[in-house]
Amino acid sequence: MDSIGEQFIDRTKHNKLGPSDQALGKPNPPIQLEFNETQPIIKLPKPSEIVTEPVELRRVIEQRKSIRNYSTVALTIEQLSYLLWCTQGVKTVVQGISTLRNVPSAGARHAFETYLLINNVKGITPGLYRFLALEHSLISVSLDQYISDKVTKACFNQTFIKSSSVTFIWTVIPYRMNWRYGERGYRYLYLDAGHVCQNLYLSAESINCGACAIAAYSDDELNQLLGLDGKEQFVIYLATVGMKR
Amino acid sequence: MDSIGEQFIDRTKHNKLGPSDQALGKPNPPIQLEFNETQPIIKLPKPSEIVTEPVELRRVIEQRKSIRNYSTVALTIEQLSYLLWCTQGVKTVVQGISTLRNVPSAGARHAFETYLLINNVKGITPGLYRFLALEHSLISVSLDQYISDKVTKACFNQTFIKSSSVTFIWTVIPYRMNWRYGERGYRYLYLDAGHVCQNLYLSAESINCGACAIAAYSDDELNQLLGLDGKEQFVIYLATVGMKR
Repeated sequence: MDSIGEQFIDRTKHNKLGPSDQALGKPNPPIQLEFNETQPIIKLPKPSEIVTEPVELRRVIEQRKSIRNYSTVALTIEQLSYLLWCTQGVKTVVQGISTLRNVPSAGARHAFETYLLINNVKGITPGLYRFLALEHSLISVSLDQYISDKVTKACFNQTFIKSSSVTFIWTVIPYRMNWRYGERGYRYLYLDAGHVCQNLYLSAESINCGACAIAAYSDDELNQLLGLDGKEQFVIYLATVGMKR
Repeated sequence: MDSIGEQFIDRTKHNKLGPSDQALGKPNPPIQLEFNETQPIIKLPKPSEIVTEPVELRRVIEQRKSIRNYSTVALTIEQLSYLLWCTQGVKTVVQGISTLRNVPSAGARHAFETYLLINNVKGITPGLYRFLALEHSLISVSLDQYISDKVTKACFNQTFIKSSSVTFIWTVIPYRMNWRYGERGYRYLYLDAGHVCQNLYLSAESINCGACAIAAYSDDELNQLLGLDGKEQFVIYLATVGMKR
């Protein structure tokens, strides 16, 4: 009996796939999850107006390591905006049906919705937020004072989440990918999440922050905290960020 | 009935996993696949001796896009060495049982073996090679004159493979990951492959090359070409590189 990983790989081979929903003429799913437009949004500083110190790519690649120990100095909203820009920033909206971003994505499907657990960012009330990539803005999801404890617990008490300034929680909407690629799209969701996280590592390093990816978490608990059903949308990867000590 | 993607996600939840082989006290698998030591190896220029032009991280992130159209100018062996260094270069071997590299990997497991389809690199006979990360060297796998056509065909005739200077073919040895993480490790293989590919995109861009990731290929055909069984080792991701026009 093949393991579930082996079965997954076997059944997502091209010759095992039926026609995709795109091939069947079904409509392109929306490029961003809806949000309540009556709710106030937090406009982030425009990337074009954020000045960053020039840092050398090679040095950043060579220096990067996972950092779990952070300074208590808060991130600025400009720094947060820059990190979101590097990881999910939208450069172009193509005919309203796809986006070009600062990260590559299979078929430019960009199936992500980024959530942020904010602990220590100057000018932003701690809580759980969602990044609106098209608006380059944040919208609050939960200001529950225990949300940071709850996310930490759902990640098996990896306590550096609590001491980070912000934890990126990448969720995906698989249909945005699978509409084009069918079941094979599940592979691409994980590949794409790796692209995104690597850009976070490098952009964090470039502003004297440290980052640490997290893939060990209780799927059910974390999805529930974020209000996700775990099928139409689910958490795929996380990473903490904080200023280096 | 859940789709195979949904089943995979469900059955790789922490509460569905048994104890890992590591937890059961089984020995750490080797950090690199064996190779025939009587076969000549091609030593690549040492990363520390390769001079690269300083380029700004942010500019590279913002400029990066998938490029499928390449100049006929060959890559130099120094450039190839630099790209391998950025994507899989070993910084430290830890007690002979794990490695720290220029990319992050879950638990520093680094389950990759990188193969290269070389078409147009100055001083290297076209063919299929394997990168020996610990030796920072190449070893030839096949000098079949049709190997480039065969790989292209296995990738559904994405013809830019043939016009690229080199195609990175990342394979994984799942047990190197799953020894620690069990079946959940399959998720991490894809996440890690995304980290690696993003570093290729950025490091390629930094030396005036373009890259293009490829995830659409015939698993069976490509594994067979590389001599892999598709279970103990399999292709997980590819990317072409060539000088920009």
